[in-house]
Amino acid sequence: MLNKKIGKKLIPIAAVSAIILGTVLSGFPQSNLEVEARSDQQNQGRIKNVIFLIGDGMGPTYNTAYRYYKDDKSTPYMEKTAFDKYLVGMQETYPWDDQENITDSAAAATAMSSGIKTYNNAIAVDVNKQEVETVLEKAKEKGKSTGLVSTSQVTHATPASFGAHDESRHNYNDIADDYFDELINGEHKIDVILGGGTSYFERSDRNLAEEFQEDGFSYVTTKEQLLNDDNEQVVGLFAPVGLNYAIDRPEEQPSLAEMTESALDRLSKDNDGFFLMVEGSEIDWAGHDNDIVGAMSEMEDFEEAFEAAIEFAKNDKQTLVITTADHSTGGFAMGIAGEYRWDPTSLLAAERTPDFMASEIANGGEVEEVLSEYINLELTQEEIQSVQEATATNDVGQIDNAIERIFDVRSGTGWTTGGHDGVDVNVYAYGPQANEFFGLHDNHEVGQKVIDILMNKRTR
Amino acid sequence: MLNKKIGKKLIPIAAVSAIILGTVLSGFPQSNLEVEARSDQQNQGRIKNVIFLIGDGMGPTYNTAYRYYKDDKSTPYMEKTAFDKYLVGMQETYPWDDQENITDSAAAATAMSSGIKTYNNAIAVDVNKQEVETVLEKAKEKGKSTGLVSTSQVTHATPASFGAHDESRHNYNDIADDYFDELINGEHKIDVILGGGTSYFERSDRNLAEEFQEDGFSYVTTKEQLLNDDNEQVVGLFAPVGLNYAIDRPEEQPSLAEMTESALDRLSKDNDGFFLMVEGSEIDWAGHDNDIVGAMSEMEDFEEAFEAAIEFAKNDKQTLVITTADHSTGGFAMGIAGEYRWDPTSLLAAERTPDFMASEIANGGEVEEVLSEYINLELTQEEIQSVQEATATNDVGQIDNAIERIFDVRSGTGWTTGGHDGVDVNVYAYGPQANEFFGLHDNHEVGQKVIDILMNKRTR
Repeated sequence: MLNKKIGKKLIPIAAVSAIILGTVLSGFPQSNLEVEARSDQQNQGRIKNVIFLIGDGMGPTYNTAYRYYKDDKSTPYMEKTAFDKYLVGMQETYPWDDQENITDSAAAATAMSSGIKTYNNAIAVDVNKQEVETVLEKAKEKGKSTGLVSTSQVTHATPASFGAHDESRHNYNDIADDYFDELINGEHKIDVILGGGTSYFERSDRNLAEEFQEDGFSYVTTKEQLLNDDNEQVVGLFAPVGLNYAIDRPEEQPSLAEMTESALDRLSKDNDGFFLMVEGSEIDWAGHDNDIVGAMSEMEDFEEAFEAAIEFAKNDKQTLVITTADHSTGGFAMGIAGEYRWDPTSLLAAERTPDFMASEIANGGEVEEVLSEYINLELTQEEIQSVQEATATNDVGQIDNAIERIFDVRSGTGWTTGGHDGVDVNVYAYGPQANEFFGLHDNHEVGQKVIDILMNKRTR
Repeated sequence: MLNKKIGKKLIPIAAVSAIILGTVLSGFPQSNLEVEARSDQQNQGRIKNVIFLIGDGMGPTYNTAYRYYKDDKSTPYMEKTAFDKYLVGMQETYPWDDQENITDSAAAATAMSSGIKTYNNAIAVDVNKQEVETVLEKAKEKGKSTGLVSTSQVTHATPASFGAHDESRHNYNDIADDYFDELINGEHKIDVILGGGTSYFERSDRNLAEEFQEDGFSYVTTKEQLLNDDNEQVVGLFAPVGLNYAIDRPEEQPSLAEMTESALDRLSKDNDGFFLMVEGSEIDWAGHDNDIVGAMSEMEDFEEAFEAAIEFAKNDKQTLVITTADHSTGGFAMGIAGEYRWDPTSLLAAERTPDFMASEIANGGEVEEVLSEYINLELTQEEIQSVQEATATNDVGQIDNAIERIFDVRSGTGWTTGGHDGVDVNVYAYGPQANEFFGLHDNHEVGQKVIDILMNKRTR
């Protein structure tokens, strides 16, 4: 009798093995995987929240260089960055564009927000300029809360491609209007908007800051106001356009991590879950300027935001953190003039970006005083003289370039362009279904996967 | 009775699930993984053979650019290269060196051959110049066959770090001597040696070609001889130093794929298995020369060898194919002068490298004739004139640079150095235990994993 009773719960082991192993073998048969992305994947259910972090311009060299920058030289092996243990693959970034085959931020962000390829300049519209639905919009339709956080103006290409639609990224005012005007089920589609860009919200023709407040949003413009506000809906704009580079940032402006944490605090109150896009926007800006000091400072700001996202996801266990770049910028390489070294010493000695120092000098600061105030190492007479000569031109751009050159030569940093470059970019993922992103994907595939995961279209 | 009989083969499904899923969940719980590296992993047993392919200098941009180079422009999405679907992660490359923190090929190859970090210049010796055992030597000790295949001289840093020991990579003759003199269990440790380098084997002080033949090896120096020989032990040297670039290669020299296939034919006759290292050596040389035509031609040569290795492994099912680079070279970037395009049209129009054309011109060839013979597109008068001006210097290097510049400007290719650069490099893997390489690893970890896998130290 006992045997019979148990018998109902028994099936031949061979059959069980076949079923279970059959599923397994089609995927990953073996374990012993060392990256934390996998060993930590304890929640195997559907995911509720997605945090999509984008390091704008963060090509592979930025990730490697940042590891050198943060390395503790007293230990034999190089320390990993916060990103490193979550590396799952890379993505292709090329756009669908008649003129250009290296992407801009708009086409790349549209691929990631909407799962489609489009032309450079396109904000969540396809090659026929037809609007495409974004993951943020789909999340809102599903009743989730949504947020956009950036260090650039919040109307810049990357956040815009998640929260607006426009045939041109340059229509900042229209993009800001979309954030307010485009409703989903009668509600504003973005609950948390944090970054720079008061000039696109407080305009002579329209005051979106007031309009958002009339509809129940908080409106904050300093870090203190942000931290003292706990409204689930908030617009926080901390600069007229983009925030300052992290290393130059004044006290009133929050860090990207502070904005991310503030967004997570608000969004996580929604039992239906949330979608949050966080952009380290100005890694790209430093790359365009060929400014390695600014680039490393922005990488650090982005890493801290990434860590905040990972910490949230580790506690929550229903959150996917997907992190990548839209493209690489500047043709940045660690290595110039045949030298086999990339030395961050001078970068670590900088207390402000070359931009900041150049501006001080252009505004009347004495070259040697400004340099010695903001660079904690002794410059050579030749280096100082190079900046003095640039200063004689009265061109702040040339002063900036002369200071940048000091850091480039000392660190061994090379650049090939003031634009973007075409290399594939790294992809990092953590949380349930992080394994969806293993290997090489095209950027529209990454976008589609995020949509499918958040929509729970991939059941297992 | 029947029930009882079956009962012996039954255990509760919950228990089975717990056992099997327990193993699985510690690794990859979910399947639906799209890269072929995984779905094809049908043989879950121990591996018998390892093919370790190294694209010398093949930084991430080389892989991306090669995809653009091979793209079929008539299709909307970019075609994947042979490598792409096997991407499993990246590796760090930094050496342990007092002077330099960007690796050379010797330190990187030693990390991959022996699982240890060492100084630039070191051929399978540690930082104290003590010899370290390589994976090739361990394989031979275990009774496996072994092979080294390269397009450089076979005594060059990468193959040398698998088959020899020397405090300096520059001791080519000593390295060749090691290949013959260092016995394992009374046998020569390398069964198949294919590449360039007759000048290091047929020397005035010693003739290793004869010595190898006396010990039963075949010695071949042309592609025809190689293809007509089926001795399991062979030394094949097809040039005094390195082979020509693939695009310049004369008929007598085999391709890297032909050498790889020839090596696999021989090595696979050993029932104990084999270890084979295959190097696409001159991707790096083209990178040092900042020659994008040569680089793409070498990438193609390397891809074909990779495909031969994958094909073997797919049939064999007991072979691990691990493919990576030792470092990146040249600070190569897709993108110059703020332009958002990388256009391989001119590269595809080249029938020889700039090196080859410059040499023809330096030897008396008329500039316009040489250029029009080897470049299938109409050059501008300005371009032709730039080469004519360089020719007036009587410096073949300057002629070479002038021709390279035509391709750089037309394609949008930038470089920052004539040396190496520090970016992490891509890792591709196929076959049983390919999943060991997922994520980011340090290069010595990759080397140690290959050793452990080949030694079957990682049982599951």
